[in-house]
Amino acid sequence: MVTSRADAAALDAASPLRERRELFDLPDGVVYLDGNSLGALPRNVAPRMQEVITREWGTGLISSWNTADWVGLWRRVGAKIAPLIGVSGDDVHVGDSTTVTLFKTLTAAARLRPRHRVVVLEPTTFPTDGYVAAGVARTLGLELRWCDPADPAASLDEDVALLALTHVDFRSGAMYDMAALTAAAHDVGALVQWDLCHSAGAVPVSLVEADADIAVGCTYKYLNGGPGSPAFSWVHPRHQEAWDQPITGWFGHARPFDMDRDFTPADGITRMASGTPSVLALSALDAALDVFDGVAVDVLREGSLSLTDLFIALVDERLGSVFEVITPREQGRRGSQVSLRHDEAYGVVQALIERGVVGDFRTPDVARFGFAPLYVTHADVYDAVDHLVEVMARDEHLRPSYAVRNAVT
Amino acid sequence: MVTSRADAAALDAASPLRERRELFDLPDGVVYLDGNSLGALPRNVAPRMQEVITREWGTGLISSWNTADWVGLWRRVGAKIAPLIGVSGDDVHVGDSTTVTLFKTLTAAARLRPRHRVVVLEPTTFPTDGYVAAGVARTLGLELRWCDPADPAASLDEDVALLALTHVDFRSGAMYDMAALTAAAHDVGALVQWDLCHSAGAVPVSLVEADADIAVGCTYKYLNGGPGSPAFSWVHPRHQEAWDQPITGWFGHARPFDMDRDFTPADGITRMASGTPSVLALSALDAALDVFDGVAVDVLREGSLSLTDLFIALVDERLGSVFEVITPREQGRRGSQVSLRHDEAYGVVQALIERGVVGDFRTPDVARFGFAPLYVTHADVYDAVDHLVEVMARDEHLRPSYAVRNAVT
Repeated sequence: MVTSRADAAALDAASPLRERRELFDLPDGVVYLDGNSLGALPRNVAPRMQEVITREWGTGLISSWNTADWVGLWRRVGAKIAPLIGVSGDDVHVGDSTTVTLFKTLTAAARLRPRHRVVVLEPTTFPTDGYVAAGVARTLGLELRWCDPADPAASLDEDVALLALTHVDFRSGAMYDMAALTAAAHDVGALVQWDLCHSAGAVPVSLVEADADIAVGCTYKYLNGGPGSPAFSWVHPRHQEAWDQPITGWFGHARPFDMDRDFTPADGITRMASGTPSVLALSALDAALDVFDGVAVDVLREGSLSLTDLFIALVDERLGSVFEVITPREQGRRGSQVSLRHDEAYGVVQALIERGVVGDFRTPDVARFGFAPLYVTHADVYDAVDHLVEVMARDEHLRPSYAVRNAVT
Repeated sequence: MVTSRADAAALDAASPLRERRELFDLPDGVVYLDGNSLGALPRNVAPRMQEVITREWGTGLISSWNTADWVGLWRRVGAKIAPLIGVSGDDVHVGDSTTVTLFKTLTAAARLRPRHRVVVLEPTTFPTDGYVAAGVARTLGLELRWCDPADPAASLDEDVALLALTHVDFRSGAMYDMAALTAAAHDVGALVQWDLCHSAGAVPVSLVEADADIAVGCTYKYLNGGPGSPAFSWVHPRHQEAWDQPITGWFGHARPFDMDRDFTPADGITRMASGTPSVLALSALDAALDVFDGVAVDVLREGSLSLTDLFIALVDERLGSVFEVITPREQGRRGSQVSLRHDEAYGVVQALIERGVVGDFRTPDVARFGFAPLYVTHADVYDAVDHLVEVMARDEHLRPSYAVRNAVT
């Protein structure tokens, strides 16, 4: 039971992750609870980027495609992500934006089930997932079916080609049971695709064990790849031979340097590649992922739950009548964030930012706090709630300037 | 008439571009004639990236989407490219890979001409242009028609939705007459899309003046944005209101932070955006483009033609019986590269690289030399031909190790 900042600090001192925070370059005086939106900067990114820019690009020039193996860079990055999502390092592609990657996987998935014309998704998903699915549906003549977020399986039937779900909800932080929903989709002959944007690097994901078909995730949240860093995708090996993604480019060709006029897809996950990926963006991500070296996913999860448990307990105790905790209290249904509902959530978030506690606002009434277990401490949690108590006691969230709302993911 | 290295150096001393080379960080002892594949490193990229990484990302964290205006970064980059291609800065999008961008523009272009079912392209185009067009054609039920590269207009008829041509050929360096072919396409009711990968930043491009419809180009060649830097696209304002690209994501939404469930495209070129772009990749490109500040496109072109004229003249004079110059000698039909045909072109290129003269090989028999006018000098050209003469005189191109071929764009 934590009743003081010293209690919180004692939990940090005993944590197996206690030395990890030093791997990040966090500004002084900031409690950063927005790593679920943009991860903090790992210390090794800046020196690695200087090396890539000045030595690999500046000195090596074109030869670095071979000598620095830029050609294989996306594979090395994918292999680093693989253990965090429970798959083989040979089956992960990294390269395009999350939206572009979703477009490719949704199209290819639908092509695996040509006699099924429905894509099921849930209406509280991150909006761009819906936008891109709508674009795919229109292009391919599919139907979108919006399910009940509390019971996606109820929307499954034999018309369904694909169930496309976000594993951890971006707004509430609620987490689906991946294995159970995957089995339900398979029962009707549908495939399942998991959006791991709010999962990878923070909660255990076991795609192979859950028998999932496809996964896509972003790398700039808990994977700390930097703003707009490239997304990853995974396709179960059983689908790779028939996998037919629509953006056929030379990086996905079986023999790109033969310069054949006709396209022949490469084997395996390589056919997910389209054009030349950004070497700078991939290199930053490659360096960033080193912070996970030697950390078991279960240890990450224990750290995350300890932080979110503490935050919920302190909010309940000190502000229980003021905020509604909309994130599941049940550990097994919780991601690595806690969301609080309040009519003036925008002002609450802004007032906290003024005090150096960075969370974010999600329309219409949600204050969101992410707990990246590698660099957020129990002392941070304690301080954040302290500030929150003071904000509410002083009505700082009601400042007139907060009447105009603005937010970025 | 250049008859000595001193003559070449005198041309450099008199060039209006003579101080530009200092803006680049080129390795000592290298004559870099591969800027048509990967542009050299502008000196301001490394310090700018340190700033973006440590201050904007590391210290600013999520707030930098607003305070550093990461949201508007792609627009600022697009506005810097615009004068190099003869368009308004409001009409250029930058963000995805070239292949992904081509996929979006080809699909949207076909949707503008729904009763026309043919896309005309030329078989010597860079292969990925054909691969992605084939993917689009298959998805939309279109037909690809391969034209005679010497006369694309002969393949135009009223079935044609789109003529998709590469302005400067990647292998030969031959340049099409943009205005004439655009007019020919319009005569049959077709649209025209120009691939500017080997044009932008090296030859004058006047898309609006030529009345073109759509253009796409990469930024890592003559625009020096770094390996795999994001591509640009331009859509004529007359097509923007009906423009309907397939990868609908939140960055192309009219009000992304309303988090609506349904997609409403933004006005203008913004609807070309899909997901969150790489801020690191865009920032490197943003910095790199500063080397063009204050340089008129015509001055670039004069510099480029002076270099390619000299290279062709020296090869003719000293190696005229050994190499066939396959690049047009007529200035108006020449890009900013010169390509030489030789049965052992691969060995020739490798032997030159051993001597510090970097060109590249294109299958099956082409040695390609790019002349980026901002940093290649007439002295470089003189030295390169000197080395080429020595390579051939000593049969260095016939080394057994060059029997195994390998090449990267």
